[in-house]
Amino acid sequence: MSLMVSWLHPMLDVMAVVAILYAGFNFQTVKRVLIGEPMRTRELHASHNRLAWYIALPILAADLYSSVAYGPEAGMTELVALGPSAKWLILPITAATVILLAMLIVSYIMGVMAYPNGGGAYAIAKDNFKNSFLALVAGSSLLIDYILTVAVSISSGVQNMASAYPILAPYQTTLALLCVFIILVVNLRGVSESAKVFSYPTVLFMVCMILLIFTGFANELRHGFVQPSTPPFGTVPQGITTMLILRAFSSACSALTGIETISNSVPILRDPQQKGAIKAYIALGLITAFTLLGFAYHLYVRGLPVVPNNTLLSQLTQAYFGHGVIYQVIIWSTLLVLIMAANSTFTGFPQLAALVAGDGFLPRALTLRGDRLGYSNGMIVLAALSALLIEAFNANTNALIPLYAIGVFIAFTVAQVGLTRRWFRVRGPKWTVKASINTFGAVITASVAVIFAVTKFSSGAWVVLIVLPILILTAWSIRRHYNHIAEELRIDVKTMRPESHRVVTIVLVSGIHRVVLNTISFAISMHKEVIAVYIAFNDESAKKMEQKWEEWGEPCRLVVIHSEYRTLLQPLARFLKRVETREGGRPDHIHLVIAQFIPKKWWHYVLHNQSSLLIRAWLIRHKDVVITTVPYHLHK
Amino acid sequence: MSLMVSWLHPMLDVMAVVAILYAGFNFQTVKRVLIGEPMRTRELHASHNRLAWYIALPILAADLYSSVAYGPEAGMTELVALGPSAKWLILPITAATVILLAMLIVSYIMGVMAYPNGGGAYAIAKDNFKNSFLALVAGSSLLIDYILTVAVSISSGVQNMASAYPILAPYQTTLALLCVFIILVVNLRGVSESAKVFSYPTVLFMVCMILLIFTGFANELRHGFVQPSTPPFGTVPQGITTMLILRAFSSACSALTGIETISNSVPILRDPQQKGAIKAYIALGLITAFTLLGFAYHLYVRGLPVVPNNTLLSQLTQAYFGHGVIYQVIIWSTLLVLIMAANSTFTGFPQLAALVAGDGFLPRALTLRGDRLGYSNGMIVLAALSALLIEAFNANTNALIPLYAIGVFIAFTVAQVGLTRRWFRVRGPKWTVKASINTFGAVITASVAVIFAVTKFSSGAWVVLIVLPILILTAWSIRRHYNHIAEELRIDVKTMRPESHRVVTIVLVSGIHRVVLNTISFAISMHKEVIAVYIAFNDESAKKMEQKWEEWGEPCRLVVIHSEYRTLLQPLARFLKRVETREGGRPDHIHLVIAQFIPKKWWHYVLHNQSSLLIRAWLIRHKDVVITTVPYHLHK
Repeated sequence: MSLMVSWLHPMLDVMAVVAILYAGFNFQTVKRVLIGEPMRTRELHASHNRLAWYIALPILAADLYSSVAYGPEAGMTELVALGPSAKWLILPITAATVILLAMLIVSYIMGVMAYPNGGGAYAIAKDNFKNSFLALVAGSSLLIDYILTVAVSISSGVQNMASAYPILAPYQTTLALLCVFIILVVNLRGVSESAKVFSYPTVLFMVCMILLIFTGFANELRHGFVQPSTPPFGTVPQGITTMLILRAFSSACSALTGIETISNSVPILRDPQQKGAIKAYIALGLITAFTLLGFAYHLYVRGLPVVPNNTLLSQLTQAYFGHGVIYQVIIWSTLLVLIMAANSTFTGFPQLAALVAGDGFLPRALTLRGDRLGYSNGMIVLAALSALLIEAFNANTNALIPLYAIGVFIAFTVAQVGLTRRWFRVRGPKWTVKASINTFGAVITASVAVIFAVTKFSSGAWVVLIVLPILILTAWSIRRHYNHIAEELRIDVKTMRPESHRVVTIVLVSGIHRVVLNTISFAISMHKEVIAVYIAFNDESAKKMEQKWEEWGEPCRLVVIHSEYRTLLQPLARFLKRVETREGGRPDHIHLVIAQFIPKKWWHYVLHNQSSLLIRAWLIRHKDVVITTVPYHLHK
Repeated sequence: MSLMVSWLHPMLDVMAVVAILYAGFNFQTVKRVLIGEPMRTRELHASHNRLAWYIALPILAADLYSSVAYGPEAGMTELVALGPSAKWLILPITAATVILLAMLIVSYIMGVMAYPNGGGAYAIAKDNFKNSFLALVAGSSLLIDYILTVAVSISSGVQNMASAYPILAPYQTTLALLCVFIILVVNLRGVSESAKVFSYPTVLFMVCMILLIFTGFANELRHGFVQPSTPPFGTVPQGITTMLILRAFSSACSALTGIETISNSVPILRDPQQKGAIKAYIALGLITAFTLLGFAYHLYVRGLPVVPNNTLLSQLTQAYFGHGVIYQVIIWSTLLVLIMAANSTFTGFPQLAALVAGDGFLPRALTLRGDRLGYSNGMIVLAALSALLIEAFNANTNALIPLYAIGVFIAFTVAQVGLTRRWFRVRGPKWTVKASINTFGAVITASVAVIFAVTKFSSGAWVVLIVLPILILTAWSIRRHYNHIAEELRIDVKTMRPESHRVVTIVLVSGIHRVVLNTISFAISMHKEVIAVYIAFNDESAKKMEQKWEEWGEPCRLVVIHSEYRTLLQPLARFLKRVETREGGRPDHIHLVIAQFIPKKWWHYVLHNQSSLLIRAWLIRHKDVVITTVPYHLHK
């Protein structure tokens, strides 16, 4: 019983008890209800049905196409400062965005042709550069952007809901966090990337957008293409600068995020896969371009103002359809498609993180598949970081936009440079044409990235420009750590084989009772040098123990140590040092055997000092001691 | 490396890491700064200087005498509802309180004569009743009341400060909690019960009270003993009931808490100890009676109203001295004496808790002396519970009063009954007189306890009447648990001796590398049946491992287990079950050897899955398996 001694501050006891309670808590039940039963590894590819490109299209389109819900608004917001005479600029800016979209799609089609098994910017860079630095730049940028995609999409979806139901406006942050949590749980349960049900919201949203745009045209046919509310076209607003136009352009470019999804998912397409992917890209490009241009045009014609609690999409819908059923359908489909976009990120981010972690750049835990076969650790990291962003920016889309899309454009640039290198290396038919296209693409995307960084620097881009190098440096040092360890652990199987060593076994005893009987029995069963150590807090108990030990027939050598400070740890540590340095040299292994009470009921832990746990935690961290815990399960 | 597998939900990983960080955190430094260097056990009685009774008196008086700061006010508060015509009742009520005080002092003097080495109600009851139930009732009641003493004293002190400085009023709870924390830290550092410095605040406060009362008389000599503000005397206010008078009486009795302190501290007095204690009791009784009566009389004469943010003590002082230096001195000395009262409880509670825990009724940890030789666990429990009360009652003295003093009077009653039994048993000179005094005392204190319980039931006493039986029941079940365990652990040293048993050692291996080499070397050094177990997540890794094991020269038997669910724990548990039930019978000990990575830097834990920790935590709780952890300290 004298083992039960407060040798550290009692608060450490409390902490140990808390740790035990955590471990004892039936976490599994909660997990099973939320996440479901675990799945076998071989179920991984079982439910995989390949899809025709036109069925896959809406599923893969959510990420890019949903961006139309916030891209034009983000551009328009930047023009507000210049007054109504600047509103017409949304038209050339959107046109420029669409041209950039076309170029990116051409580049991605070339990427698909080169890497039919799906290759994001990270894989392309890894394949084409000896040094993995550029691959890491691309990977880190994309990871950051994935996190922003979740934050921006969810925030925008919730903002649209709050436009429809102003009562929700004060709760946007909470609602957004709730959405992230739900998406996380659904993804931890495991969702098939290719579930057809995911295509419905996107199709619905596409239909809604097309309906909206055609209603707009019909409206303009009746009321004129220049309406009373239409701001003047082509005027040069006062205070206009190239900088301001570029800012608006880069904000509008947030509509271009998500292009990479199709190229990552080529393997889910039905044969011929490449052709399917190319068709999907062209179709997606056309419909996105049409939507962006149409939407921007109607925004201009109606001259809608940017207001805090009513998105432009909501205003335009209201203008054409009032506050009725169609309005509701459009708002809800917007929320759904944005949630789908966030949801698809919960596939993309963990896959990329697993790929990067597989190369040793991120903690290995990210490469492990969870119970439901998804990369659950990656999902949790994504959810946590995007929740943090939502919390920090109060789910405000326009505040998040300046951080967004830089990552994507950096990754685009790396991918294009990689492809260019590839054409130079592989050559093949028309390689010069391909190489020039990708070179041109690289120049453009690099320029866009620079424009982003410069124009958005003060309004938030600096965050990304600080986080990105830190992430890259951390990744490098993680890989260095893993490499060092791999080297440290490597052995030559021919020469380095396990051998029997000299072991000194020390048994910590607290008296003579059943637990000590059990512990000593175990120790002498292993039959090496066994020393029992008793730590006495006063002379009386020391003498009593020595005498009882003799009566017990001295099952092994007993060493009694006096502890003046009523602690176990320091005298024990001193004794271990003595064993290490005594004549005969240090034994190869010092082996400490400790008993641990395991009460029947968790609250009984309060009644039994868990000194063994604390001794173990300290010694294992600070000394090279093998520690054996002999549990004694109390019956009562 | 395949040990690094997420076999439980990744959040458990996070929890394990947090637990490790806690253990690794340099708690010692913080502790040393706050608490000081540890002290040797033999220093326990070194600094003990015995005191003459008149020097010890103010030190031991703080608890009782400080009660005058809130007792009369508590009684007056109860009379408020009846209007000014009831104010005169404070005089007979205070007189009754003083009579009760005299009786209690007589009883305690008899207690001191019977138990010269100090004996509280718990010790008296334990000595005089075979069954320890009544002792437990007394002990639990006192423990509860000690907690209330801290809460009430600190709250009252802070309330007086807030009367002087209204700016503090909104922060009373915070200030009170801060006081508790400071008193805790000071007591954890260790304060000698007999430090003379502790007498100064009480002497100062006594002087202040006497000054206040004589100033009152001087004032009345000049302005008349019946002043314009004096309420009528002897009128029967409308709505008066016996119940209301008893309520006011029981509130006023809160001034009687703390009488037991002297009887607990007889050993610190200079010889002749008993005579000194008796003199101290008489002196303390006289001065307390004088102060209570004088204070109550002046309150009546001035007809002061009970208001929320200005205590009666503060009002009376203001009336005589204005808001000047003397007022400041009185208010500060009130705060100090109340803090002294709380402080003396930090000696009383842990000592009593250690006594009760020593009898097995409370967790053993309460009997352990901390670094500075005080019962630090008891101090922490007291601080935590009184802080909880302060928080729950927002440091409102009048809300706490109804819970207060019941415990003391229950304990008084048990002690008197115990003394009566003692006189019947021991007899001795004038035993019949003594027995009748204590019998009478028991009847009175029991009546007071019942009056308390009935009159204060709805306003808070019910809390105590619920908590008390729960505490007693818990204490009984704790003792039953300890008794069961003592019985379970008891062995016959002649017949039950350690023997060598059959042990099966199982080594969990994650591949072939330096860590496994080290672990297997240790296991075969112990040279018993060793089985290496490898858990494979796919056929490929299983085959590879078997082949490499052969190349390695098969240092021991290898068992490869397939894990379909990518977890280590379930297949391992299944394997252990197989070992238990296979032919040849269950081995006496199943011994599992696990390697544990110990990184150099704490943040490296994130990079290494701590599966071994989690496996250990689960197995040790749920299986009868001896677990050995072989640490591998990473060099980089």
